[in-house]
Amino acid sequence: MSKQEIVLMPVSSSGCCAPISDAALDAAGAAEGATVFKALADPIRLRLLSMITSAGDEICVCDLTPQFDVSGPTISHHLKVLREAGLVDCERRGTWVYYWPVPERLQWISSLLAVPEPIPAR
Amino acid sequence: MSKQEIVLMPVSSSGCCAPISDAALDAAGAAEGATVFKALADPIRLRLLSMITSAGDEICVCDLTPQFDVSGPTISHHLKVLREAGLVDCERRGTWVYYWPVPERLQWISSLLAVPEPIPAR
Repeated sequence: MSKQEIVLMPVSSSGCCAPISDAALDAAGAAEGATVFKALADPIRLRLLSMITSAGDEICVCDLTPQFDVSGPTISHHLKVLREAGLVDCERRGTWVYYWPVPERLQWISSLLAVPEPIPAR
Repeated sequence: MSKQEIVLMPVSSSGCCAPISDAALDAAGAAEGATVFKALADPIRLRLLSMITSAGDEICVCDLTPQFDVSGPTISHHLKVLREAGLVDCERRGTWVYYWPVPERLQWISSLLAVPEPIPAR
């Protein structure tokens, strides 16, 4: 049996941490990361997030719902999950709710998986 | 009701696509992405992946299992999910199975969430 050492990398409270290619996550960091990935692990939520992030500034829920074959309340539920994961934020103005991305959170979860340098092909 | 246009970004068969901050995913791209995020949406799997990616080259399953309070078969199941998502690969050599990351797949899923430029604070 080998005795390879595993270096642990704690996640700070700000959610900022080194890529997993640099150091292994501890249990707390893995739990926080897994919560965000769970929010992304649904095709409707991932499409919603992509529509919100690519909208430029913000996007009305009235422009999101017609893109899907599911009900308005279902879309609202998925948007709530994205908001609770810290990936988007929103504001009600009159009849409609407007959504925008939280770039710091997206950057954090993206950089967690970043592979800084190409690894030679095996 | 606003009439904001949503630009769709198809995912190529190679799994390479622009960040979601550039264009919205179509249904097929969202389905593929969500499958990978589902593999990451478990704290044990995320820790396993971080141990494998940070190991430098490859890591023996015998060095992974002792880091967790769950059984060997449970760890094997989680490793299988990571492998089926294309995030890691493995090879049996003698008694033990050795795992290594698939950087192209990590790079793809990381770049999907990348935020290229800071968005001004609201």
